[in-house]
Amino acid sequence: MLGATGYSGLELVRILAHHPRVQSTLLLRRSETRDTTYLADVFPQVSGNGHLPLEPFSWEKLHEHKTELLFLATPHGISRELVPEAISRGLRVVDLSGAWRLKESGHRAVYGFHDADPECAAKLDARAVYGLPELNAKKIPDADLVANPGCYATSVILGLAPLVCAGVIDHERGIISDSKSGVSGAGKEPNARTHFVSVADNLSAYSVFGHRHTGEILEQLGVESQHLIFTPHLLPIPRGILSTIYVYLKHETNPSDVEACFRNFYHGKPWVRVFPAFTLPQIQYSLHTNYCDIGFSLAHDGRRLIVVSCLDNLLKGAAGQAVQNMNLMYGWPEQEGLQ
Amino acid sequence: MLGATGYSGLELVRILAHHPRVQSTLLLRRSETRDTTYLADVFPQVSGNGHLPLEPFSWEKLHEHKTELLFLATPHGISRELVPEAISRGLRVVDLSGAWRLKESGHRAVYGFHDADPECAAKLDARAVYGLPELNAKKIPDADLVANPGCYATSVILGLAPLVCAGVIDHERGIISDSKSGVSGAGKEPNARTHFVSVADNLSAYSVFGHRHTGEILEQLGVESQHLIFTPHLLPIPRGILSTIYVYLKHETNPSDVEACFRNFYHGKPWVRVFPAFTLPQIQYSLHTNYCDIGFSLAHDGRRLIVVSCLDNLLKGAAGQAVQNMNLMYGWPEQEGLQ
Amino acid sequence: MLGATGYSGLELVRILAHHPRVQSTLLLRRSETRDTTYLADVFPQVSGNGHLPLEPFSWEKLHEHKTELLFLATPHGISRELVPEAISRGLRVVDLSGAWRLKESGHRAVYGFHDADPECAAKLDARAVYGLPELNAKKIPDADLVANPGCYATSVILGLAPLVCAGVIDHERGIISDSKSGVSGAGKEPNARTHFVSVADNLSAYSVFGHRHTGEILEQLGVESQHLIFTPHLLPIPRGILSTIYVYLKHETNPSDVEACFRNFYHGKPWVRVFPAFTLPQIQYSLHTNYCDIGFSLAHDGRRLIVVSCLDNLLKGAAGQAVQNMNLMYGWPEQEGLQ
Amino acid sequence: MLGATGYSGLELVRILAHHPRVQSTLLLRRSETRDTTYLADVFPQVSGNGHLPLEPFSWEKLHEHKTELLFLATPHGISRELVPEAISRGLRVVDLSGAWRLKESGHRAVYGFHDADPECAAKLDARAVYGLPELNAKKIPDADLVANPGCYATSVILGLAPLVCAGVIDHERGIISDSKSGVSGAGKEPNARTHFVSVADNLSAYSVFGHRHTGEILEQLGVESQHLIFTPHLLPIPRGILSTIYVYLKHETNPSDVEACFRNFYHGKPWVRVFPAFTLPQIQYSLHTNYCDIGFSLAHDGRRLIVVSCLDNLLKGAAGQAVQNMNLMYGWPEQEGLQ
Repeated sequence: MLGATGYSGLELVRILAHHPRVQSTLLLRRSETRDTTYLADVFPQVSGNGHLPLEPFSWEKLHEHKTELLFLATPHGISRELVPEAISRGLRVVDLSGAWRLKESGHRAVYGFHDADPECAAKLDARAVYGLPELNAKKIPDADLVANPGCYATSVILGLAPLVCAGVIDHERGIISDSKSGVSGAGKEPNARTHFVSVADNLSAYSVFGHRHTGEILEQLGVESQHLIFTPHLLPIPRGILSTIYVYLKHETNPSDVEACFRNFYHGKPWVRVFPAFTLPQIQYSLHTNYCDIGFSLAHDGRRLIVVSCLDNLLKGAAGQAVQNMNLMYGWPEQEGLQ
Repeated sequence: MLGATGYSGLELVRILAHHPRVQSTLLLRRSETRDTTYLADVFPQVSGNGHLPLEPFSWEKLHEHKTELLFLATPHGISRELVPEAISRGLRVVDLSGAWRLKESGHRAVYGFHDADPECAAKLDARAVYGLPELNAKKIPDADLVANPGCYATSVILGLAPLVCAGVIDHERGIISDSKSGVSGAGKEPNARTHFVSVADNLSAYSVFGHRHTGEILEQLGVESQHLIFTPHLLPIPRGILSTIYVYLKHETNPSDVEACFRNFYHGKPWVRVFPAFTLPQIQYSLHTNYCDIGFSLAHDGRRLIVVSCLDNLLKGAAGQAVQNMNLMYGWPEQEGLQ
Repeated sequence: MLGATGYSGLELVRILAHHPRVQSTLLLRRSETRDTTYLADVFPQVSGNGHLPLEPFSWEKLHEHKTELLFLATPHGISRELVPEAISRGLRVVDLSGAWRLKESGHRAVYGFHDADPECAAKLDARAVYGLPELNAKKIPDADLVANPGCYATSVILGLAPLVCAGVIDHERGIISDSKSGVSGAGKEPNARTHFVSVADNLSAYSVFGHRHTGEILEQLGVESQHLIFTPHLLPIPRGILSTIYVYLKHETNPSDVEACFRNFYHGKPWVRVFPAFTLPQIQYSLHTNYCDIGFSLAHDGRRLIVVSCLDNLLKGAAGQAVQNMNLMYGWPEQEGLQ
Repeated sequence: MLGATGYSGLELVRILAHHPRVQSTLLLRRSETRDTTYLADVFPQVSGNGHLPLEPFSWEKLHEHKTELLFLATPHGISRELVPEAISRGLRVVDLSGAWRLKESGHRAVYGFHDADPECAAKLDARAVYGLPELNAKKIPDADLVANPGCYATSVILGLAPLVCAGVIDHERGIISDSKSGVSGAGKEPNARTHFVSVADNLSAYSVFGHRHTGEILEQLGVESQHLIFTPHLLPIPRGILSTIYVYLKHETNPSDVEACFRNFYHGKPWVRVFPAFTLPQIQYSLHTNYCDIGFSLAHDGRRLIVVSCLDNLLKGAAGQAVQNMNLMYGWPEQEGLQ
């Protein structure tokens, strides 16, 4: 894998290290120098586990190591650059960045990609499978390029998909996801926004009407842009996402029918936990797990519905989901290595 | 004042101690014993200021002290009990509890009041003035019973009032306030919900479709119950509220008109800061101040509007607003003692 | 096991659920009623794992279940009460409370035990093995009563043991451990001290010159009471302990000799990580692991030595160490089930 | 003042804005451009107060404004550069950096100053008064260069000074200050250490045996370098310092004598609060105040003494103390503008 020095990358390393079906993981880094460094130099918390060498990236090294599957936990620009060659060399790829998630060029525009070979990139855009196992479990096993979903997008899509698929939402009245995320979602780059003093004892909304994950939600759910509002907020916690999702149902419905809708949709899906009606998940429940927890509350009128969806942005929102995708790509049990 | 040992009470003591127009503040507590205790025993942070004796409550003591104005920072049941006598004794009252805020008996029902003299209580319910100075500046000066607003209610009402009054909101599409509060809003009582380990690294929604402040918002704004969703969340911070409020405008509007709507409404109101269009307040900005900060963002369609409203729940949401009300009741400048 | 509803108990349940050598774990609770409840009712985070029934405690149930080993994560009074019968019934016990850790009655006095059969209790006091595997690996395998160490005590003893055993410390000049712990160490009981608002944005020292873990440190290290100061502090974090330990060396020493002293002592001990000289561990590094991390810094004079010791109070400081003890008691690898 | 855009600078602006004796404060910034910017652009929390223009620094501007006193809240290098000219122009200076605090060149070496005119700098080094009002109240009124103390140094010196002056400490056994600070003490620069995810849920020791404030403590207390250990730790809170200070008394002493020693020393000093014996201050008590709070606990042997000292690093540890110094320099009451 490439990109072990970020927050998601570290989680991925940890999971792969104990995954019973993964024989050996090669940790790579982009670098000017030829020296081997160690992950424990960046994250002292992993020392005591053999120090985990970080080797400079090269296609030769991947070849020697007989790598079949490449995890990319790199900035999206790097992913756009490396994936075409990786695929042409016969590697399968799970990409954790936003590089290959979006089908519509309008949605991709927010990333401002500069592709060396736009034609090839367009083919890969079409071929990439959006790696949300609860929605795309059929396509993922045969995919060679899996675009691992955004953390916010995972929480919003999983909270809405059963209702959207059942056709019970009145889209015209608008769908709103008021989402809140811990700081690791903003990445490891130190800046004024991620400074402890800026975040602690605070809450702020950001990227209002313009967050990059919006396109994923619209495309995967088939919702019209004008019918969705997605508002991210920065929470004073290291990790975790909670989305409070507001929808209006077309018809008066009772709580047990709403619960049944969720339970049926997620039947047999090991990484979504549906809570009983009126019991709402909290961020703490899913931290350090690969679960997405979903609960809801319905107003007396049987129309105004609030869905609450929680997950750990570094696991179900990133590294855990990437491994879940790997499991599907290899025909292994979906829970393998994730418990 | 009665109730200095709660979080709001402590802030009130601090403000009154340095208020240039307040001659002396008598701190009272309900108690079985006749002994004088000291506020510094409860809050060591106020030691070094003369220790502030807490005397047992009695009407005689209030009379001797020539008290004109009684602040009640007590549980609502105590307020229902004491206010009738206080008013009959000619005292003016600023009550910080939820006891006298609601006009409609249906809304009051959530509190489950048991009044000794229901008729007298009903008269006082009618006579009480909702102490939101930005809305009721005309009625407060002559009021003898001012019901200081709830912290959440203040943040939601101030975020919506200019738009509601201007008649620009499409109520039928629904108004949603996704509100988040620090833990001091839940009171000083230790319980499983306020335990540090339950709150830290967490976020949770609570009292969904049933929070007591909902009635205040509906009554003050004249919004129909089925058109409002108000969802409180518990933030892992000690103090501060941020409300993210979603409305749909009846007509396509440009941002400068929305900004003008807010600026005109709050012109001359010293304790509301209107932010420029697309600049959103954060909780930190208003902490330890009496400001309510309001900003907004408007979608490209000119219809979907997000208002963000922030305040310190112990100041503009409680003790600061109580003093602002006192200032109005005595004809003093609204900022007096609050800077 | 008994006591799954506390913080340490929950961690123990989690570890045992995935421990490859443990066949089935019976979760018990002390209770008036005969009904079975579920751990997921107390900790919703464990739902999705079969809900984990909590059955009312009885010796018959233990017998039916063919329990060999009983974990007690109960208050110390309950442990004093249950352990004599458990041992007489042929069960082996790992007790996570402070009930059986102390050999000297003077040290035990701080707990104020009231034993039904003092003679029997005294025999068990003598027979109990202090379950710190890095010190007592020889005695634990044959023990039938293992007293799992206190969280603070583990951090202080492991930071000092190599130096004390090597005889390099000048005890006369005093040994000081300035220790800091997250709030879960104070237990799940809600009270004024554990209220979020009391802990957040704060730090406080407590139980100065009188903390219960002091006796464990003195007994295990063989240090005289007047030569040790141990000062606990309450950190605004949910979990984790860092002890900053100050000692004076008898002779001028160079850093590599100090490092060698630690490395030799912990050679072959999988759950202690010794850091290179002048590299200090941080609380984050050991969170959610069973490691105790140890680093040090030595002044230019080669005499003033600061040792920093970190661990997760719920794992190496409680449940993880309990499982490490179980592994030793059954002759299994020390890491089994803990990675 | 120069340097309003840092954390201490912001607090200084806030205090000066409401100081009854300060007529007008000119806010300056070092800058390439000639444009006036506004403090509210950097700190939106100060908007609503006239926006506070930040004008480019020039000596002419200071002259026009008839500035008598210059506050420097700048990096120490800038202070070394500007102060000689400021003094030669007849300005009085309160410098909040470490530039002029140290008398011994050995101690100054840790800063690595490069002075344009070393001779002039040496004269100013000699002439500068260490601005700790509780120690130097006699020298400050006539000083033209006041070096405002370091935040850690203030907490340690105030905790020790009464005992050192009384000659009751056994220096030979060593004096240890285990100090813990919130993140604002590390400045506003975003870096890996101040990233929220690095600090939250963590605690770490740093600059062990080498922190810059050590020299201040040694010089002001007249303690030998080998007799002091000062260990800073980074707390997961925005502001506040707690120092746990360990000393051995020469003779067996009773608690009331220790308390008397502190009370006598700080008699008439309005900004130090001495707590009763065995009652220890916490960080929260002094936050947002200019107090340094001091308490202690004494072992049964009457020899081992723990002093706990707390303050707000941005107030008594920086801006508040700077204003306290100004008050002394102008013969105003020490509390003026600080309540």
